[in-house]
Amino acid sequence: MTDFAATRTQFHLPEGVIYLDGNSLGPLPRAAVARVARTMQDEWGEMLITGWNKAGWMDKPMAVGNRIARLIGAEPGSVAMGDTLSIKVYQALASALEINAPRKVILSDSGNFPSDLYMAQGLCRTLGDGYSLKIVAPEEVMEAIDETVAVTMITQVDYRTGRKHDMAAITTRAQKKGALTIWDLAHSAGAFAVELAKAGADFACGCTYKYLNSGPGGPAFIYVAPRHQDRARPALSGWQGHDAPFAFDLDYRPATGAERMRVGTPPILQLAALEASLDIWDTVDMAALRARSLALTDQFIAGVEAACPTLTLATPRDHAMRGSQVSFRHPEGYAIMQALIARGVIGDFRAPDIIRFGFTPLYTTHDEVAKAIEILAEIMAKSLWDRPEFKTRKKVT
Amino acid sequence: MTDFAATRTQFHLPEGVIYLDGNSLGPLPRAAVARVARTMQDEWGEMLITGWNKAGWMDKPMAVGNRIARLIGAEPGSVAMGDTLSIKVYQALASALEINAPRKVILSDSGNFPSDLYMAQGLCRTLGDGYSLKIVAPEEVMEAIDETVAVTMITQVDYRTGRKHDMAAITTRAQKKGALTIWDLAHSAGAFAVELAKAGADFACGCTYKYLNSGPGGPAFIYVAPRHQDRARPALSGWQGHDAPFAFDLDYRPATGAERMRVGTPPILQLAALEASLDIWDTVDMAALRARSLALTDQFIAGVEAACPTLTLATPRDHAMRGSQVSFRHPEGYAIMQALIARGVIGDFRAPDIIRFGFTPLYTTHDEVAKAIEILAEIMAKSLWDRPEFKTRKKVT
Repeated sequence: MTDFAATRTQFHLPEGVIYLDGNSLGPLPRAAVARVARTMQDEWGEMLITGWNKAGWMDKPMAVGNRIARLIGAEPGSVAMGDTLSIKVYQALASALEINAPRKVILSDSGNFPSDLYMAQGLCRTLGDGYSLKIVAPEEVMEAIDETVAVTMITQVDYRTGRKHDMAAITTRAQKKGALTIWDLAHSAGAFAVELAKAGADFACGCTYKYLNSGPGGPAFIYVAPRHQDRARPALSGWQGHDAPFAFDLDYRPATGAERMRVGTPPILQLAALEASLDIWDTVDMAALRARSLALTDQFIAGVEAACPTLTLATPRDHAMRGSQVSFRHPEGYAIMQALIARGVIGDFRAPDIIRFGFTPLYTTHDEVAKAIEILAEIMAKSLWDRPEFKTRKKVT
Repeated sequence: MTDFAATRTQFHLPEGVIYLDGNSLGPLPRAAVARVARTMQDEWGEMLITGWNKAGWMDKPMAVGNRIARLIGAEPGSVAMGDTLSIKVYQALASALEINAPRKVILSDSGNFPSDLYMAQGLCRTLGDGYSLKIVAPEEVMEAIDETVAVTMITQVDYRTGRKHDMAAITTRAQKKGALTIWDLAHSAGAFAVELAKAGADFACGCTYKYLNSGPGGPAFIYVAPRHQDRARPALSGWQGHDAPFAFDLDYRPATGAERMRVGTPPILQLAALEASLDIWDTVDMAALRARSLALTDQFIAGVEAACPTLTLATPRDHAMRGSQVSFRHPEGYAIMQALIARGVIGDFRAPDIIRFGFTPLYTTHDEVAKAIEILAEIMAKSLWDRPEFKTRKKVT
């Protein structure tokens, strides 16, 4: 059982703030500042170039990947750190398309994070030759997986609504139709226990600056299922993914395993911050995390619905379909979020009408949720937003 | 005139070490530790998600790029930070090939850093359709630029020998033959004044952890000449390079200018370390830097050649053809470098026979060079490496 009162003390949380935006940028682990300073002073400063071996920098992408593997149900050695999520999506897509030739369709949904779609569009244009991206509505994904689909590229949890796709069902359907799967875990890793290996996923990618609290611009990760590791071609074939990077051969020859997905020099300072966060994560039981996450989101949904009748829930009530965030719709969502932030409740707004709140058991408490509901209720009660004269005045101005 | 005694005090240099490997990993700027800690505590810790606007994180890739622009002779707004050098090479190559269609040949040389070649090989395979990488000897580059070449991809300074290509001459030749140019400035940026705009370069890329001292895994940069900025297609089309990233459109539409080359979330901690280094660079006169660099390398070449007759100079004597490093060849180069490191002189070894020394005027002194020559001479004099019985014994063991 995880002691969430204890994990909370390990984060710096500013005075007077209820932070419900850890699904966008996680807070600072208290130990991270000293950890990064130590990396800079004792390793970079003192070891200089020898830090690549002496301090183990060269091995960090796979060593840190192994710590993330537990959180996402991945086999040891199957997760490599580096670059950004968009880059890792590109590598996964290019690999999957080559493995699953001659199929040429990437299937995704309109709830996917746009950068994934942009990267797919860029790849299709580079590939030419009939490759295309097909975008359907989220609820149409299952049916749209047919024998023409080379790979599905799905973000498990919708960044706006918090709706969670059924990874096992989609993966099973894809396997039946001969399609491969790429799962974007941006809003999954650290939000609940992901079970990549159990579901039979082919590839996955994610970022670490949300639920995993690595700080702004922390490195991404990529998962390659063991059965694909030695045939996946990293389209971005950089020297750190070479079988012998320091042989300086003129020809590329991929490393064995997921390590071939490494590209350039790993970001050691950002990795050090991530490691400070993973020290906390190592103590967390994922079942307890999920139970607390659902209790927090249930509390928020019930409280807000009781107190704010004009807000419309955008997040599924069904636990099986919910990530670790709650979103409501309101035509004046932007102004409502501004009012909340002015009162110290930090969530965010996503156009056109969504106010979004992340619930992160490592540091969010039930007391904070109760207080956030109270403040939101006050704002909604005092506001003119739901009165007809407000709308009239808006039209005049 | 730059005060190099003053710049030296702004770096942490370990006791008892003569560091001649700043061409591989620059040392720690003293101010960087506090700068990164401040970014973590005052920005990430206190501002949380609002740091993207309040602390200017979102604008860092272009703002920092503008500070590097001065060092490489680039127009304001033409340099974007992010990712790694390999990724930026891929973007430059993909853009150049599309601009210069229907030509399909990438020309490079065997002295190029292998990762550039690997990225080109990966791109050609993704493009298919007859795209190819042609590799010639460094001295054959000029002649090999003909009407079939779409783009030349040249690292200005050879990472092994320190031989410097003539950027102006190669670019002029390329223009005459209708080829575009991509310059890898890994061993140029911060080594001497690069003049991209003056030479008429089309694209350039570089890293910041060598002469620019941003620390292990610091971000790369990409230069796009203004005339190409609004038609260059970033093959890696991520949301940070979108014209309106927070509109979350489903379709990619590139930002104006070089900013379209941004991909994912920028590495704010690594950028903070780089900024501490750029505070020092802002005080440096590039002509003075070059004069001191040549004086240091001249001193080393003359001293070593006088004292160590069995070492063969691999670096050009001609100033116009020399970067800011000196390399010597010796069959026992690896063992010689190990002996040097044991005596506190840090350079590095590149197979099969090169010992390599970087000279970085911001912190390397003539006294250090004299001492390094003395130590190297002692090692060579005492060693058995050049005696026939050593070679005989080696064969026996």
